[in-house]
Amino acid sequence: MTTTAFEDLVPGRVIDLGESTVDRAEMLAFAERFDPQPFHLDEEAGRQSVLGGLCASGWFTASLWMRAYVDHVLAGSTSQGSPGCRELSWLAPVFPGDVLRCQLEVLGARRSRTRPNLGMVDMRGTAHRGERCVLRLAFTGMFGCRDADQPRQDDGPAGQD
Amino acid sequence: MTTTAFEDLVPGRVIDLGESTVDRAEMLAFAERFDPQPFHLDEEAGRQSVLGGLCASGWFTASLWMRAYVDHVLAGSTSQGSPGCRELSWLAPVFPGDVLRCQLEVLGARRSRTRPNLGMVDMRGTAHRGERCVLRLAFTGMFGCRDADQPRQDDGPAGQD
Repeated sequence: MTTTAFEDLVPGRVIDLGESTVDRAEMLAFAERFDPQPFHLDEEAGRQSVLGGLCASGWFTASLWMRAYVDHVLAGSTSQGSPGCRELSWLAPVFPGDVLRCQLEVLGARRSRTRPNLGMVDMRGTAHRGERCVLRLAFTGMFGCRDADQPRQDDGPAGQD
Repeated sequence: MTTTAFEDLVPGRVIDLGESTVDRAEMLAFAERFDPQPFHLDEEAGRQSVLGGLCASGWFTASLWMRAYVDHVLAGSTSQGSPGCRELSWLAPVFPGDVLRCQLEVLGARRSRTRPNLGMVDMRGTAHRGERCVLRLAFTGMFGCRDADQPRQDDGPAGQD
């Protein structure tokens, strides 16, 4: 059985999520729809901003990371969404053509107190351009358990993702 | 002069960001590209999940909120992006056709210590479906100041958004 379940996400585990390349056309289309600020749409406006150039919406960068997480961990897993993030840091601007190496680290894991078959996993995600970390997020994922007969601790509310 | 600058974002100010309706086709297209988990793509998988039905990626909901924030506050403002969020909570699943009322509240504001013309504004954003809060985020925005001759305090790193 290759499905990733709660029991597989043990604290300390680090999972490589591969590389994502920032496509200029997609980056611009995302910004036009969701974050049409001048520095996300226009070269000159980007150069004149503190960001230093035409750069991605932070929500686009986070969404690219999410796709990498789905492809490398969540696809075929027992994931049941997430109540949210404790941190979502845009540490440096991301530019068209950037190649981002994405990674996941398991920080902690506990059985749900209120839902017998669920476990809550605290994780940190990062995206690096070379040595530079450009995105960092800390969040909780809910995963189904293979074995529901173990002790349970507290958990959070059901989320969307 | 109607441009929103740092000086306009005073703690305690609450700004209505209008309503956003969750378009089913757009919700699904977003999920297919960025968050292709079964409960974001398939009715039956949604019903069988703890989320209770086919529902939006939390990143889509956050992106809808961002667009409302741009339309009602950032467009034509002195915004210079954001270093990130201290909280991004997906408090309840969001479904196709949901009408989300979006709001912004200014929590705090301080002049940048290192960048003379910038101010850092701490804000909380929410999206409600009826009385139910489905999305809450707490973040810092960087805004240009009209008057750069006031005392400055500390600030954070430059971000993407």
